Amino acid sequence: MQAATTAVRITEMSAEPSPNPRVVIIGAGFGGLAAAKALGGQPVQVTVLDRENHHLFQPLLYQVATAGLSPANIAQPVRGILGRHANIEVLMADVTGFDLAKKFVIAGRHRVPFDFLIVATGARHSYFGRPEWEAFAPGLKTLEDALEIRRRLLLAFEKAEVETDPVERERLLTFVIVGGGPTGVEMAGAISEIARETMVRDFRHIDPREAQVILIDASDRLLPAFDTGLSHKAEDQLGHLKVSVKQGVRVQDVTAEGVSTPEGFIHARTVIWAAGNEASPLVKALPGSFDRSGRIHVTEMLNLPEAACIYVIGDTAFCLGKDNQPLPGVSPVAMQQGRHAAHNILALIEGRPLKKFSYSDRGSMATIGRHRAVADLHFAKFSGFPAWLTWVFVHLIFLMSFRNRVSVFLIWVWSYFTRTQGARLITGKKS
Amino acid sequence: MQAATTAVRITEMSAEPSPNPRVVIIGAGFGGLAAAKALGGQPVQVTVLDRENHHLFQPLLYQVATAGLSPANIAQPVRGILGRHANIEVLMADVTGFDLAKKFVIAGRHRVPFDFLIVATGARHSYFGRPEWEAFAPGLKTLEDALEIRRRLLLAFEKAEVETDPVERERLLTFVIVGGGPTGVEMAGAISEIARETMVRDFRHIDPREAQVILIDASDRLLPAFDTGLSHKAEDQLGHLKVSVKQGVRVQDVTAEGVSTPEGFIHARTVIWAAGNEASPLVKALPGSFDRSGRIHVTEMLNLPEAACIYVIGDTAFCLGKDNQPLPGVSPVAMQQGRHAAHNILALIEGRPLKKFSYSDRGSMATIGRHRAVADLHFAKFSGFPAWLTWVFVHLIFLMSFRNRVSVFLIWVWSYFTRTQGARLITGKKS
Repeated sequence: MQAATTAVRITEMSAEPSPNPRVVIIGAGFGGLAAAKALGGQPVQVTVLDRENHHLFQPLLYQVATAGLSPANIAQPVRGILGRHANIEVLMADVTGFDLAKKFVIAGRHRVPFDFLIVATGARHSYFGRPEWEAFAPGLKTLEDALEIRRRLLLAFEKAEVETDPVERERLLTFVIVGGGPTGVEMAGAISEIARETMVRDFRHIDPREAQVILIDASDRLLPAFDTGLSHKAEDQLGHLKVSVKQGVRVQDVTAEGVSTPEGFIHARTVIWAAGNEASPLVKALPGSFDRSGRIHVTEMLNLPEAACIYVIGDTAFCLGKDNQPLPGVSPVAMQQGRHAAHNILALIEGRPLKKFSYSDRGSMATIGRHRAVADLHFAKFSGFPAWLTWVFVHLIFLMSFRNRVSVFLIWVWSYFTRTQGARLITGKKS
Repeated sequence: MQAATTAVRITEMSAEPSPNPRVVIIGAGFGGLAAAKALGGQPVQVTVLDRENHHLFQPLLYQVATAGLSPANIAQPVRGILGRHANIEVLMADVTGFDLAKKFVIAGRHRVPFDFLIVATGARHSYFGRPEWEAFAPGLKTLEDALEIRRRLLLAFEKAEVETDPVERERLLTFVIVGGGPTGVEMAGAISEIARETMVRDFRHIDPREAQVILIDASDRLLPAFDTGLSHKAEDQLGHLKVSVKQGVRVQDVTAEGVSTPEGFIHARTVIWAAGNEASPLVKALPGSFDRSGRIHVTEMLNLPEAACIYVIGDTAFCLGKDNQPLPGVSPVAMQQGRHAAHNILALIEGRPLKKFSYSDRGSMATIGRHRAVADLHFAKFSGFPAWLTWVFVHLIFLMSFRNRVSVFLIWVWSYFTRTQGARLITGKKS
């Protein structure tokens, strides 16, 4: 299969003005960008396609949703990141399908030919077959999602301030987060802190400290990817922030009035969804087998068993780790896979043998509020303030551009000492 | 009239739990905020109503529209600004009318009673009776406006990059700004600089330097509020930035294809409106006479001749200056009038005589691109880099909060030396 692909490429190449093989990367997330950077300056012609013009530092998206950071603090134009590589072009386009026989990608009225394809389109939130819940419980994947959640959070306090009916006021001040993974835990902690610290002085008719933040999780413990001890630490730390954690509770329905559970109906005007992910639906157009959340099975080389010139990486790929467990949908996996896919493509072009992917797991972290966190770095598991400091520095190091690193750091230091949230803006559609 | 008002207030007061007169301020712009701050800690009960939750530093809005700054850099939650004054409450509500006989303001289903009213609702852009032009030529008043313009500007370059028809590509790279006041001049300079400096390295199929920026102005010179010499300087400086200035040209029609003028049709996919202002329509519900752009005539005390307890300030008021010319719609006028209205209301309450308003004009400035400006400080008129430095420091000093001042300054220094624009994000609705 690989030999055949190479042959086709060589045949095409002779008729083309450009002598180098064409690599098309779909998606400029952590995986796609890592692949593109690894291919910068190499003897390939690279096209990066993304429906947005910016790369998003998703681990900090919850801080935009909770008014701590601005969109520009965690997003960078893809062109700006890749501009210095003359062999890379960036196109803002929404990929709608493939013609795998003729080897091109379809993006609206554009057709982009490829010799090698890297699919890195990520995941979106999944409502377990109940897409109608999305209108009442938005998820957190894009900048638009974050701004919509910020709008709903801040408007709930504004509406409560002018509400005279005490029952409705209580519903406006009840915030339900569904899902006990890192996003759910981080959102719950941040919302509770805004209400209890940032907003205390701002209102005259309500006491924001009366806000109830409820975290609902269907599994038996928070942060299931972490050590059991750290899960309990996270629960303790959320307790300190007055977040009420409802463990082992499954959501039965979500409406404009709130959330229905086997334990009863929770009246809440703001519900946030952090419960499930599914692979971007574009991979369905590729040949292969899929897991329950829509991820496509890849080989140990990270390409498709049935199409060796197509690599799939990150949240879109189903790939087993050393312990025979599927690799989690986190940015280190995507970045390492991106680099690996790029290296395998270059190896193929240069006639070197392909290498198997092996994930080097350096640990996981989650923040809980303004100065708490849990960290599992394998050699050490810790929580509280030391874990939070580690979290801050790791995230600063990973933030893409120098300018963002400096400004995010200043914003964090500033809000740490003043307990303000600078991006408390309600923008977007009125309601 | 004033005596009668006071009498009514005293009668109502005796039945009320709060012993202090109620002052309602509509609008948290420069004028409304200055009034509110002057009333902070005084023996009055203040309610500030605004349809947004934030105060906007409008003079820098063009920098959000041209991707230099983020919304949070130039906007602050009104509650955060006024929170420390216990006698001030802030309500986020859209005022829809008045009951002047019973003395309350109507905001949706809320009724807010007042003894004194300060109307500071500002201006919006005017299309000279052609509201259908707005869809093709958005104006710049709110954060949403700025984000929409930013989206259109950046998308035009993205679309041009994937466009294969050279005629359509040229139309995508043509940007028309209508109106030669400070906003139009600042927008034209900034757009031309983004194309010629920031984006140069980013594209593969277009040369952003080929973008045409056309500034159309119906009057005989740019910046009519400035000295004639400075108008010519501004035109020179725009020329250096390759902005083509069309003076004395009236716009006849605006469509999705471009702008129609007596000199011919200009094909352009992006048109920005900076040509006209009209007072916010809410003042129409007040008793009085109005000028051509909808501003209500106020007395020298800044209240209405027919309703002495109602003060109107800023862009919504028609008020003559020392030279018998109407005062311009700029923030120093609004701020001085806000403080003056507050002092007159306190004087009335305390039985002191009211004072006449007199505007202390400290000069005007406009920036043209990254390091040029014109400044008229009366005692000195200058242009170029010294004017730009003055502009930067005056604007930093006036920016509301300390944190914004620091972060805006860092962003400016950073982009000055690197020629990048950090907020180059396309967000909002897809097109």
